[in-house]
Amino acid sequence: MKYSYISHLSCPKCNKTYDHQEPQQLCTCGSPLLVNYNLDELGKYVSRDSFVGRTASLWRYHEILPVVNEKDVVTLGEGMTPLLPMPVIGDEMDIPNLYMKDEGIIPTGTFKARGAAVGVSKAKELGVTELAMPTNGNAGAAWSLYAARAGIKSTIIMPVDAPKITRNESAISGSNLYLVDGLISDAGKIVAEAVQDFVLFDASTLKEPYRIEGKKTMGLEIAEQLNWNMPDVILYPTGGGVGIIGIYKALTELKQLGWVEGELPRLVAVQAEGCAPIVKAWKEGKAESEFWSDSETVAFGINVPKALGDFLVLEALYQTKGCAIAIEDQSLLQEQKRIAELEGAFICPEGAATFVAARRLRESGWIKQDDVVVALNTGMGIKYPDTVDVEVEVLQKGEILRK
Amino acid sequence: MKYSYISHLSCPKCNKTYDHQEPQQLCTCGSPLLVNYNLDELGKYVSRDSFVGRTASLWRYHEILPVVNEKDVVTLGEGMTPLLPMPVIGDEMDIPNLYMKDEGIIPTGTFKARGAAVGVSKAKELGVTELAMPTNGNAGAAWSLYAARAGIKSTIIMPVDAPKITRNESAISGSNLYLVDGLISDAGKIVAEAVQDFVLFDASTLKEPYRIEGKKTMGLEIAEQLNWNMPDVILYPTGGGVGIIGIYKALTELKQLGWVEGELPRLVAVQAEGCAPIVKAWKEGKAESEFWSDSETVAFGINVPKALGDFLVLEALYQTKGCAIAIEDQSLLQEQKRIAELEGAFICPEGAATFVAARRLRESGWIKQDDVVVALNTGMGIKYPDTVDVEVEVLQKGEILRK
Repeated sequence: MKYSYISHLSCPKCNKTYDHQEPQQLCTCGSPLLVNYNLDELGKYVSRDSFVGRTASLWRYHEILPVVNEKDVVTLGEGMTPLLPMPVIGDEMDIPNLYMKDEGIIPTGTFKARGAAVGVSKAKELGVTELAMPTNGNAGAAWSLYAARAGIKSTIIMPVDAPKITRNESAISGSNLYLVDGLISDAGKIVAEAVQDFVLFDASTLKEPYRIEGKKTMGLEIAEQLNWNMPDVILYPTGGGVGIIGIYKALTELKQLGWVEGELPRLVAVQAEGCAPIVKAWKEGKAESEFWSDSETVAFGINVPKALGDFLVLEALYQTKGCAIAIEDQSLLQEQKRIAELEGAFICPEGAATFVAARRLRESGWIKQDDVVVALNTGMGIKYPDTVDVEVEVLQKGEILRK
Repeated sequence: MKYSYISHLSCPKCNKTYDHQEPQQLCTCGSPLLVNYNLDELGKYVSRDSFVGRTASLWRYHEILPVVNEKDVVTLGEGMTPLLPMPVIGDEMDIPNLYMKDEGIIPTGTFKARGAAVGVSKAKELGVTELAMPTNGNAGAAWSLYAARAGIKSTIIMPVDAPKITRNESAISGSNLYLVDGLISDAGKIVAEAVQDFVLFDASTLKEPYRIEGKKTMGLEIAEQLNWNMPDVILYPTGGGVGIIGIYKALTELKQLGWVEGELPRLVAVQAEGCAPIVKAWKEGKAESEFWSDSETVAFGINVPKALGDFLVLEALYQTKGCAIAIEDQSLLQEQKRIAELEGAFICPEGAATFVAARRLRESGWIKQDDVVVALNTGMGIKYPDTVDVEVEVLQKGEILRK
């Protein structure tokens, strides 16, 4: 029995293959690379029941993750986040089987920890000593901290408007942190230059192949938490799109292993009205998206004008008979408040967008009443404190409440 | 088999007993009440192995928790937080078996979620419809959100200086939130008046008996995560002291059940130099602490000048041959940074204090080299963003890193 059944990397565009025992970035054709496993061999030694009683982290699925030696695992205990019933808001929406996969309950408070844990672990295994990446904040925070744990140096560039808390997380880890007076795409250009100039490992979204594998574990967990039944619909806030690509990959692998049956869930890419390139491409039936100019949204994590993996996201939508939908900022902020009041969960604006999307898709009939629906919340609300308006009365010592 | 083996409540001071099927507050003698279980009966139906494969939340221990009907459980997926090896900083301190129990990886980002989950669940079971409490921030945030999930109204009063993020969490839940220009003790006086005036359930620390039971699960998890072996030392940041009381209660119950063997771990109460009433009382060998005037520390959660359960904390220290130690703000902030740089964990100032304490107690020889040591981090660093000083260079679009 092996710790990992990884076999090789391959290009989803030109099918070229690559060795997983060397650091790899993009395919020579410019496409992101995907990880392949010996699923037949894996299936001989591992079953669904193998996971019972294993550690409550994403590493419980190590055979279907890319790290070959357990000693190279860099972990802060990430994964096995709650899959919570949302009965009150589900009742309001007329979706009785509404669940939230809450990715706020994870180190660094967002789902980015998954990609960072697996990406940094594999980088460590391959001997990487210094990496660089652009970020909208949360990924940079996660990669900074996991890199610190691995003893890997990191250079992180984020927009000046990225959430301040992510700046603190990155800074306290000892990362080389820079801000840029622009968008993540502007940060990306500076990183691209720097990795050339200083021979750094480029950990930009999808420019290294292992972040997807970390995100994939959200799909594995949803399946295990639903007792290896597939939900009917999964809604995902979509910026760079790695989460949706990962979940699609996970469920496909589970089907190949014969661990789940039936149709794949319909995947829904949820974007902000102020930055909706995937929605536009999906509506036009296109295979790739176009750069979205002057993008703007309070849901900072999904402000990505053009994703490198857009074609993979769109493929996942087409293959699962899913859809894409854009939500205006005002609605998602209202929903964020509603979820806190009705369900006691203070989620991030990106996550709130998926609930607005569920509400609208139920209204239109696209979601049926008996569908099992999973809305992905990608992070804690407390990482974006400015999305809450607070006016509070100040009492003096000894004062009495008038109520 | 029952869902819970709770039998009754009892007073640790005067031994008076109370019914757990009615809402209870303090004993008539003024002491907090403790929960008792039919451990003999429980032991006939439940073993250590019963927990294998159960949900990764604190409710895996439901038989030894106070909620009688599963339907009354109010959960956001709290518990089974990581117990992480800290090899780099452990090596630096000459404590090779140093672990961190990371209570940042939990809903609302602090250990307060445990007390709120169990306390609110039991309040719901007993028909409570409205509660009130003073808080230093994090407990109020947690109780606001869990109360919202339970459909219970809450009135929360916190100092104006409490961390801003906790204010947002409380506000977004729809709680009746007030600030007070003073300390938690001033907030407590206003709450005490309000619960009389408006007939509210008083959820102040230790004025209701079930919060301890939630905190207790930290002790249960540490035992299970160490494969039912006791550590030698547990260090705990101590304000109200419920965490240390809970852990002591948990380990005592596990001993009675015969699920762990050997000596109880030496419990260490870690306080801030600017607010160290327990340390002072322990040094003087006293059974209770005195009010600490003009208390002040950046570790806001442990700024508690006089804890209602101080005598229970001190008893836990004396019974386990533990100790108490005060840490100055400057040192704990340095340690916070060091842990982020060396171990990739951005922890809260209170948690950082326990690591300074471990370092000092190892230097003095009180901790031995072969001791298994667990430092409790009670929350995420991101809840206190102002504890990080950040100065970051801003680049312009198209600029090149000079490195």
